[in-house]
Amino acid sequence: MNIIDIINKTKRSVPLSSDEINWLVENYTNGIIPDYQMSAWLMAVCLNGLTEDETFALTAALRDSGEIMHLSLPLTADKHSTGGVGDKTSLIIGPICASCGVPVAKMSGRGLGHTGGTIDKLESIKGFRTDIPISEFQDILRKTGFSIVSQSGELCPADKKIYALRNATGTVDSIPLICASIMSKKLAMNTNIIVLDVKYGSGAFMKTREDAEKLASLMEKIGNAAGKKCRAIVTDMDSPLGCNIGNALEVSEAVDVLKGKTKGYLYDVCIELSANILELAGKGSFDECRTMAENAITDGSALRVLRETIRLQGGDENICDDTSLLPQAKFSYTVRAVERMKIISIDSEEIGMTSLMLGAGRISKDDHIDMSAGIVMHCKAHSHSKVVKCYYKRQRMPT
Amino acid sequence: MNIIDIINKTKRSVPLSSDEINWLVENYTNGIIPDYQMSAWLMAVCLNGLTEDETFALTAALRDSGEIMHLSLPLTADKHSTGGVGDKTSLIIGPICASCGVPVAKMSGRGLGHTGGTIDKLESIKGFRTDIPISEFQDILRKTGFSIVSQSGELCPADKKIYALRNATGTVDSIPLICASIMSKKLAMNTNIIVLDVKYGSGAFMKTREDAEKLASLMEKIGNAAGKKCRAIVTDMDSPLGCNIGNALEVSEAVDVLKGKTKGYLYDVCIELSANILELAGKGSFDECRTMAENAITDGSALRVLRETIRLQGGDENICDDTSLLPQAKFSYTVRAVERMKIISIDSEEIGMTSLMLGAGRISKDDHIDMSAGIVMHCKAHSHSKVVKCYYKRQRMPT
Repeated sequence: MNIIDIINKTKRSVPLSSDEINWLVENYTNGIIPDYQMSAWLMAVCLNGLTEDETFALTAALRDSGEIMHLSLPLTADKHSTGGVGDKTSLIIGPICASCGVPVAKMSGRGLGHTGGTIDKLESIKGFRTDIPISEFQDILRKTGFSIVSQSGELCPADKKIYALRNATGTVDSIPLICASIMSKKLAMNTNIIVLDVKYGSGAFMKTREDAEKLASLMEKIGNAAGKKCRAIVTDMDSPLGCNIGNALEVSEAVDVLKGKTKGYLYDVCIELSANILELAGKGSFDECRTMAENAITDGSALRVLRETIRLQGGDENICDDTSLLPQAKFSYTVRAVERMKIISIDSEEIGMTSLMLGAGRISKDDHIDMSAGIVMHCKAHSHSKVVKCYYKRQRMPT
Repeated sequence: MNIIDIINKTKRSVPLSSDEINWLVENYTNGIIPDYQMSAWLMAVCLNGLTEDETFALTAALRDSGEIMHLSLPLTADKHSTGGVGDKTSLIIGPICASCGVPVAKMSGRGLGHTGGTIDKLESIKGFRTDIPISEFQDILRKTGFSIVSQSGELCPADKKIYALRNATGTVDSIPLICASIMSKKLAMNTNIIVLDVKYGSGAFMKTREDAEKLASLMEKIGNAAGKKCRAIVTDMDSPLGCNIGNALEVSEAVDVLKGKTKGYLYDVCIELSANILELAGKGSFDECRTMAENAITDGSALRVLRETIRLQGGDENICDDTSLLPQAKFSYTVRAVERMKIISIDSEEIGMTSLMLGAGRISKDDHIDMSAGIVMHCKAHSHSKVVKCYYKRQRMPT
């Protein structure tokens, strides 16, 4: 096998064998194939795509580049969102499912660009440790049914290296590459159940519903082919998810949802995704599972799971009673409509970028995050209202 | 400007401005843009192409990356072939045109893979120097009207760097990239007249007549847009050009053509291309120019030019009288048909590769060449004959 032949095949849309894909991933990871050859192949994939068989082979090769998790529990679930603005669903769905008897084990990333990362959000809770060892992660999972750790370099190192190269070469937006990157990590996490929330719209990776459906269908096929119970749901990200954007602000909103204080689209999405996990776990019909999920909020059992997980991961669990214990911004600024007018639509990506500018996110990997910064939306599309309230530490105006 | 935006534009078939193309070439050449970003862009070009305006801008940017030749002669011509097997036309056309009053200035490359390089061929003549300084090159040009030097690193350094990357990343076979690479060097050579011989067939870069015509038309347009008298002719390379393949063997055949001893397709192609150069130089109608070219062979004036050029470049001009003074192979081997049969077609690429294996060519850049090695075809397609005679130094059998 040689790399020029492999590049030429993909350039001419001739499918690669799984042996060729394994060889490519292995030799790129160990540094034998240089970046400039891999990036040429990645661009050929962006423009010509991969077959389902090739995507499955790539996913498996990325998964097998590192360790595979053994959770030592008979039933576990993982939930993944393709990312959006204000997406705090993991902090709500995890506790709901755990309280219904389905442990949720999650490995999460940090935010980059206009989308936030669950790990950053959790770290806004004083003392919360996201880099706990796997043994402690398993232990918390057994005790509360819910734990989240930050991504380990031992899982899918090939994906990590390829993702960094894609980011630097304009080769991010390819459905088979996105699919293989996400699914390799899910398969390495090795839960029985995988539920995927594929978002589309201005604030999401996938700009159109059509692309989101393609990605969802491909990921479902690959998850099932790998022996998992896998379901992918397509949800709308044209507006930010919920009202709060920013790390501490989002934890606060998640707590409010678990307390039953906040309903609306965010609540609906969380119940929907939880019901899917519970149904795949055999907890009943979809309607029964939906009721079960709603009850976990009404009877306070989901909030109890979150409180216990926060405590076991070293965080201040009192934020569950009093969210004002979360970092608070020094300054705030309310953007009001000049006159009474109707909001036709909200550009999630712009809102996400504004929140990032306020200090809630990172432009480059090493940027410092202001945990208190962010935006609270006092409005929805098609509503009459003042628009947004921005929170920030440094005295600067939102762009 | 930033490289990710530029890659994304080409990936989405959005044309780049000439400022963007200049920026790209300049920053790649000076090392600011790394190979892995350039190779992603090159692959996007291979799959999506470039517009004519973009190709012209790329050609100009490559030309302007280095020095531009000043030949200090009122009329000069350059001839280029896209390369093939047994192609020794430069050694014949240069002397013909020079003897008709149109100086031919040529910068040539070395052979790589199954196609030979004119510089290697000339170096099979004992003493012949191809790395002469520009002042000497200009001097010989003034005296004989014909000189060939090896490619200088001072002309089109950006093309040299990009070509090496294309070779390592499966991004060679793109018509706009091939066009920009060839034409940038022709424009930097800066003759008034450029005649291009675009070959197609099994032994050529362009496998189909259609692709050859596309490339020819694009190169002609770009040459004319740059203010040159430029013409591109498409010729067939399904069979090797002439009978001899291999360095000394090809010089010997060129001398035989200039002596009027050898006719056939090689002779016809040389007369055709010479007549085109002479016509562009205003020497008469095409038919008059063709007669002029034929006369240059009949009256021996073309051979006199070659003899004088060889002498001035330090080579043994006596090979013009006695080609057995060229390096001779120790061994030869005749491949005969087992029984009397008809040859339907000849695979030029296979013949070129066999000649390379015999020692006449290079697989990698630093390989040593056996000047005496090669193949003499005793047959043509659709003829009845024994097949080929192989020449080589080392006692090994052709593959």
